[in-house]
Amino acid sequence: MSRTVIRGGLVITASDEVHADVLIEDGRIAALAAHGSSTAESWSAESTIDATGKYVLPGGVDAHTHMDFPFGGTFSSDTFETGTRAAAWGGTTTIVDFAVQTRGHALREGLDQWHAKADAQCAIDYAFHMILSDVHEGTLKEMDLLVEEGITSFKLFMAYPGVVYSDDGQILRAMQRTAANGALTMIHAENGIAIDVLVEQALAEGRTDPRYHGEVRKVLLEAEATHRAIQLSRVAGSPLYVVHVSAEEAVAELAAARDKDLPVFGETCPQYLFLSTDNLAEPDFEGAKYVCSTPLRPREHQAALWRGLRTNDLQVVSTDHCPFCFSGQKELGRGDFSKIPNGLPGVEHRMDLLHQAVVEGHITRRRWIELAAAAPARMFGLYPKKGTLAPGSDADVVIYDPAAEQTLSAETHHMNVDYSVYEGKRVTGQVETVLSRGTPVLERRSYTGRAGHGQYTPRGICQYL
Amino acid sequence: MSRTVIRGGLVITASDEVHADVLIEDGRIAALAAHGSSTAESWSAESTIDATGKYVLPGGVDAHTHMDFPFGGTFSSDTFETGTRAAAWGGTTTIVDFAVQTRGHALREGLDQWHAKADAQCAIDYAFHMILSDVHEGTLKEMDLLVEEGITSFKLFMAYPGVVYSDDGQILRAMQRTAANGALTMIHAENGIAIDVLVEQALAEGRTDPRYHGEVRKVLLEAEATHRAIQLSRVAGSPLYVVHVSAEEAVAELAAARDKDLPVFGETCPQYLFLSTDNLAEPDFEGAKYVCSTPLRPREHQAALWRGLRTNDLQVVSTDHCPFCFSGQKELGRGDFSKIPNGLPGVEHRMDLLHQAVVEGHITRRRWIELAAAAPARMFGLYPKKGTLAPGSDADVVIYDPAAEQTLSAETHHMNVDYSVYEGKRVTGQVETVLSRGTPVLERRSYTGRAGHGQYTPRGICQYL
Amino acid sequence: MSRTVIRGGLVITASDEVHADVLIEDGRIAALAAHGSSTAESWSAESTIDATGKYVLPGGVDAHTHMDFPFGGTFSSDTFETGTRAAAWGGTTTIVDFAVQTRGHALREGLDQWHAKADAQCAIDYAFHMILSDVHEGTLKEMDLLVEEGITSFKLFMAYPGVVYSDDGQILRAMQRTAANGALTMIHAENGIAIDVLVEQALAEGRTDPRYHGEVRKVLLEAEATHRAIQLSRVAGSPLYVVHVSAEEAVAELAAARDKDLPVFGETCPQYLFLSTDNLAEPDFEGAKYVCSTPLRPREHQAALWRGLRTNDLQVVSTDHCPFCFSGQKELGRGDFSKIPNGLPGVEHRMDLLHQAVVEGHITRRRWIELAAAAPARMFGLYPKKGTLAPGSDADVVIYDPAAEQTLSAETHHMNVDYSVYEGKRVTGQVETVLSRGTPVLERRSYTGRAGHGQYTPRGICQYL
Amino acid sequence: MSRTVIRGGLVITASDEVHADVLIEDGRIAALAAHGSSTAESWSAESTIDATGKYVLPGGVDAHTHMDFPFGGTFSSDTFETGTRAAAWGGTTTIVDFAVQTRGHALREGLDQWHAKADAQCAIDYAFHMILSDVHEGTLKEMDLLVEEGITSFKLFMAYPGVVYSDDGQILRAMQRTAANGALTMIHAENGIAIDVLVEQALAEGRTDPRYHGEVRKVLLEAEATHRAIQLSRVAGSPLYVVHVSAEEAVAELAAARDKDLPVFGETCPQYLFLSTDNLAEPDFEGAKYVCSTPLRPREHQAALWRGLRTNDLQVVSTDHCPFCFSGQKELGRGDFSKIPNGLPGVEHRMDLLHQAVVEGHITRRRWIELAAAAPARMFGLYPKKGTLAPGSDADVVIYDPAAEQTLSAETHHMNVDYSVYEGKRVTGQVETVLSRGTPVLERRSYTGRAGHGQYTPRGICQYL
Repeated sequence: MSRTVIRGGLVITASDEVHADVLIEDGRIAALAAHGSSTAESWSAESTIDATGKYVLPGGVDAHTHMDFPFGGTFSSDTFETGTRAAAWGGTTTIVDFAVQTRGHALREGLDQWHAKADAQCAIDYAFHMILSDVHEGTLKEMDLLVEEGITSFKLFMAYPGVVYSDDGQILRAMQRTAANGALTMIHAENGIAIDVLVEQALAEGRTDPRYHGEVRKVLLEAEATHRAIQLSRVAGSPLYVVHVSAEEAVAELAAARDKDLPVFGETCPQYLFLSTDNLAEPDFEGAKYVCSTPLRPREHQAALWRGLRTNDLQVVSTDHCPFCFSGQKELGRGDFSKIPNGLPGVEHRMDLLHQAVVEGHITRRRWIELAAAAPARMFGLYPKKGTLAPGSDADVVIYDPAAEQTLSAETHHMNVDYSVYEGKRVTGQVETVLSRGTPVLERRSYTGRAGHGQYTPRGICQYL
Repeated sequence: MSRTVIRGGLVITASDEVHADVLIEDGRIAALAAHGSSTAESWSAESTIDATGKYVLPGGVDAHTHMDFPFGGTFSSDTFETGTRAAAWGGTTTIVDFAVQTRGHALREGLDQWHAKADAQCAIDYAFHMILSDVHEGTLKEMDLLVEEGITSFKLFMAYPGVVYSDDGQILRAMQRTAANGALTMIHAENGIAIDVLVEQALAEGRTDPRYHGEVRKVLLEAEATHRAIQLSRVAGSPLYVVHVSAEEAVAELAAARDKDLPVFGETCPQYLFLSTDNLAEPDFEGAKYVCSTPLRPREHQAALWRGLRTNDLQVVSTDHCPFCFSGQKELGRGDFSKIPNGLPGVEHRMDLLHQAVVEGHITRRRWIELAAAAPARMFGLYPKKGTLAPGSDADVVIYDPAAEQTLSAETHHMNVDYSVYEGKRVTGQVETVLSRGTPVLERRSYTGRAGHGQYTPRGICQYL
Repeated sequence: MSRTVIRGGLVITASDEVHADVLIEDGRIAALAAHGSSTAESWSAESTIDATGKYVLPGGVDAHTHMDFPFGGTFSSDTFETGTRAAAWGGTTTIVDFAVQTRGHALREGLDQWHAKADAQCAIDYAFHMILSDVHEGTLKEMDLLVEEGITSFKLFMAYPGVVYSDDGQILRAMQRTAANGALTMIHAENGIAIDVLVEQALAEGRTDPRYHGEVRKVLLEAEATHRAIQLSRVAGSPLYVVHVSAEEAVAELAAARDKDLPVFGETCPQYLFLSTDNLAEPDFEGAKYVCSTPLRPREHQAALWRGLRTNDLQVVSTDHCPFCFSGQKELGRGDFSKIPNGLPGVEHRMDLLHQAVVEGHITRRRWIELAAAAPARMFGLYPKKGTLAPGSDADVVIYDPAAEQTLSAETHHMNVDYSVYEGKRVTGQVETVLSRGTPVLERRSYTGRAGHGQYTPRGICQYL
Repeated sequence: MSRTVIRGGLVITASDEVHADVLIEDGRIAALAAHGSSTAESWSAESTIDATGKYVLPGGVDAHTHMDFPFGGTFSSDTFETGTRAAAWGGTTTIVDFAVQTRGHALREGLDQWHAKADAQCAIDYAFHMILSDVHEGTLKEMDLLVEEGITSFKLFMAYPGVVYSDDGQILRAMQRTAANGALTMIHAENGIAIDVLVEQALAEGRTDPRYHGEVRKVLLEAEATHRAIQLSRVAGSPLYVVHVSAEEAVAELAAARDKDLPVFGETCPQYLFLSTDNLAEPDFEGAKYVCSTPLRPREHQAALWRGLRTNDLQVVSTDHCPFCFSGQKELGRGDFSKIPNGLPGVEHRMDLLHQAVVEGHITRRRWIELAAAAPARMFGLYPKKGTLAPGSDADVVIYDPAAEQTLSAETHHMNVDYSVYEGKRVTGQVETVLSRGTPVLERRSYTGRAGHGQYTPRGICQYL
């Protein structure tokens, strides 16, 4: 039996802050005991970690990543190997990535592909959502099978007509199916049909710079689609999870739904909390670095997102990590913003940026852990295996130094991408040590992990229902 | 010069109730003068109408009729001849009917067809809206031309995929065009894509009776489409007129928009105010008589509609007159509610039913005239030629007996349809005499009109903007 | 019989714009006839007014004035003579002034005093509301008697504890009484109990300048009182009219009430539409000129008020005319803003300022007349005698030159006060000629009126109910 | 060192459900360890509790009790001795009772009295809020001193004029003080001034039965006061806790405030969740048993309260335990409902009734513990000493049998009152064993506690801010 003891730290979970020692046996949390209690004193272990003056946290759960993801004729630049390594550096110990159904092909085929991409590559544990690109009778039946295998969430797009877009009838059918099989419907909520009209008009009028990406993907069209998704989910009697919420008006739709006690959930991402259309408007095509969808919004939307995170109208902060190198990839869209691959890097910085939000007073420490670990774990059926530090949980543990200072930069980050959207940003707090199921992956900022340590983790159903 | 004087009545317009004599010269209102004033006393005329104890009203304007309208392989049973005659009997002196673009054909072609249907047939004046079935670059250009000819409103359908449905991009483009050319976009707001899924499922499960028509066309899907139309109109910067609002939740969307001072308007119809899903559920396929879209709603929605009419969140009451005989037409849908032609008769009873609402305390007399004459005339650019009794207005005048009692019935009505949705209903108040541009069409309940008296009336733009 | 004809103008009422000649017989409107109609041509009259190129308007109705009003040990500086003359100069032909009950005295006594103040003094017609300062069983009974005499509205104050303040129980009792006797409850909605705490604290801390008047009378405390008045009126089952609404949040409370179809009404005043806390902060005690309650608000509230006027969540624009000279009156509050008499001059400029709003696109011409004449007349039971131009109405008529330009100034105004809150403001449009019951009061900007022409005008009950 | 081990149970806290053994050392939780872990196996203890098949819960925290409370000339029938014993029987291990300031007397004096009442009497730990009856400069200063002694919440009444009522100025001042000293303002939100008018009218009209108590204390007047308290707290910049929320409209006010991210909190009580005006209307004066304020509401309000508890617009369920015997106490109000002492018994049944809500699907198990223990402990500065089971927490532990069935009845309850408001109600689940700081108070439903075990527990400030 392998035993590790973490001594002297402040254990922070979504609900508690406890001065406790943590005993790990065989990769799981065996016990928490008050510092100095006789039982804590009695523990012996092969390995002892001194966490005095540090936080002891459950490892982060990033419920929205796109490793090796095809978009606009290219692929996101992080593989499962590089991407999960970067995640580990940033204190994230579980990712839920999106397997993709290709039109005309079975879900199974897409899922198999993603298993092949990830198998033996990951530094940390991983799971899959499934993107539905082609909803029909066959797909609907396959959904039930996948739920049984632990793929318990399905994403549909109201955007990207002709690519992964589903119409309202397809969305309704998929929602009806999840109402029956217990899965969670995830929606990219933008009115892509209307947006494509505006894109065509912008390009025709010579408005081709990256910032027009933000202008055509209007706030009202995100709010509209959010409202529509909510109504469709009500008709279907199914729960709903809206991904990457960026607009104040969309938050308002979620808040209205939640005031009615509807099972409607929302996620936002650090880029919407810390960046804005000011970045999209950076000159010399630099704005392309910030092109993602939903797009960055004017700065004043940030306050609404923080408020939503505090009022629990938004429950989860994920990264939507989907990096493309500026050189050779983002550049595909020079002269035509619609050709810029949509996505940006982020998997490494989520825990730090949310800690920075603690420092700046936007959220409490416990809410930090809830947004970054506990809530995504509950939302996607991984709790309490992941997302908390309780007897029986996987020993995915982060030792976090709240006083360390660091500067985010492409020069120092570990994601496989040639720029950082946070280049030069100073933050307080840093991941020091990371355990995955009890095994050190990062030790005092030396990487000790390996590709293949990470395991595929089937998921149960959403625990908020 | 032809002169008529109406003496002794209470002149009621949208704004005033005045004890005045009315002088008509050459088909137009020349003057109003206080009863007994020297000037009134001085008037001589070829024709004098005694309106003592009666109301003197502007003729009704029915802004939503479908004469000789193709639907599901058949045609609505009233021609312009029979339909406008019935309208006259009911105190309506102007209709605005819907010309239809056929897919793949020009607007002009559809408009010409409707002119041909109406020309020399009408008992009262008429105008046209245009239904867009096929929005593309050519259609958009044609819209401008039609506006110049007095076709200043265009209807698009969010329902009926594969027939007259437009997608959100087409709707956005049409709205953008009206934002430029001053026309008004009219929307049939139901999420037809989602509804068709529910229709298919209902039929597959053997739920084929007329009442399932009401169940699949869900309140939430009317509200959703209403919300979506509002958001699209905001993106386009155009005004919006939502036809045949039937659901409380849709009224709430309009109210929210109007609280924001958006140029958003709503119409309802007598059938939603007086009938309900109880009627749709009548046995022996009788429910088919009440099949229209949006569908009749549960009785409790009526209160919200009345409230919306009082709070001015709904501005117009039209009939959506679109009759199909039970025998041979409605019967097409036996065993499959989706085959029942959508529509029901109503053009004759609107003024009386709204007067009944006055009697029952739902609205005031002035609001009656506003909803039934002034507001539709303003909304569709016919005011003050139509919709009021002011010097210079067309002498479209109704002498109304507020004390008369009548029973509505297919046996006595003048619409060309073999049933009445109000069969046996007792109402207080009745049209006694009707003038169209000064010419008697109905005299003390004798019909004196003729096909061809009614003239095509080009319209200006919406006067609420 | 005396006859006047007004020829060639554009007659504008709340509902219509008509090119018509107007015939006046014995002080009342006898007839309107289309320009050039045979009947118009036939009219002969002792007096003809050429209104070519001009507007012909119903005279303004100012439903909120305080002539010779006691406040803080002084009296407002306009008597009924000077104040009504100034009103006439500005196109207002009816005022409704506030008679005041003194604590410990009967309503009758206060009313008699106000009759004595106004009798034989007024240039134009006038009526009275009654201020309740002392609600008890006796007062409640007196209310019924006053209603019968044409005093059909009663004002209560949620502000000014110890002076005219009524507590919620007194307000509820008075509202219950009006629910029975048909009168309208008017409320000054500010939480005076809380405000007085803030006043005391401000003064104690040396914040004594006029601008602190605006700071202590907080927006939230106006909104709170507005909400409370609405709830009390719901409990009583009575209608409610909130005077001088100034804050966006108060408008929101009214809008919410009106969305529920409650009989709740709101008034604002030109000072809230055109002035702001910037004025209150003018140096050298100049801010005192703008001290009134509710106070002027930050500039951004103006947009909400204009929106409320357009959406009909506010129905009436009155002046709350209550002038105090800067010299000797406003100066009472040097060093203690709470001693500055509350009130400012305005009765002369309301019609012009609202026409300026037409010019600037805030409202339409018809809405101008509705807000300034028709709606207050209907609200306070004077319609259609006042507030419109229809056969039978009093011939209170304004000939308005929409193209004239003028500069507002204390040097040229006719109110008895030594400053203007609009000093130097340029506006387009000017009153040219004014008739009161057919008698010229102002002729081409020469004053032809006289004290004593104006008559006391008993009122009926509110016509919006 | 005294050690107890609880083995085999399901530990449920507000955030987690863990199969863990619990080690108690010297009255505090020393450790939690997974069942069967080597460390759990290694524990030895003097005392072992077998919790197999049972829940292991943190003891309940009842934040609203009135022991030995003076009302209307009598005293609530439970002393601290009898009341805390009953609480212990029901799984509540901490109460926060209300010390009362008497008008004209110092806070200190009231607090000393309450200490005297409770000292050496309590079976479980207790703390105090302070009721302010007389807010003035002296009181405000005393508040700061009390906060330092662990009295960190102050209750004010918008009801009961002439008794404990504070006017809006007094409330504002007290709120301002708490904004500075960190305390929490608790408000009884009913417009007592208006209610007293309705009481007087009801009695004058002979409506004297208990059910009129519910009719005069109107829903709108609870909602109004709730709104007013929120606005006053915004002006003061202070947090707000609204006690015993009973009306749907009041919940709506709280929800609106919370959507704005205001620090506004709400409590409801089991009587509002399970009882209704149907009980108040019980014949033969039986309704008097259910007289409390805020009053019981029509049954349809229950759904809104449950929804508020799920959406976290309500955060706490307390009992407002304030029993009066039917015989001799409630009977004081025969013939005059206003003389019925306000209050009813409940301290013993809160945990069971909320478990019943779990059984019936209203809330989850974790939410049960949050509402009944964790949230009140956090709200009132007792966490994590009370309200959870974590290393370092007080060993206030309940062993709960979720399968036991019981019938609530005055015959079996332990409160000192001669009736039960839940007489005959069957519920599933029962408290089996209770520890207070590690000491058994109830063992397998034998009472082993003693008066004087319970300690006064000073509180920190609200932890939600």
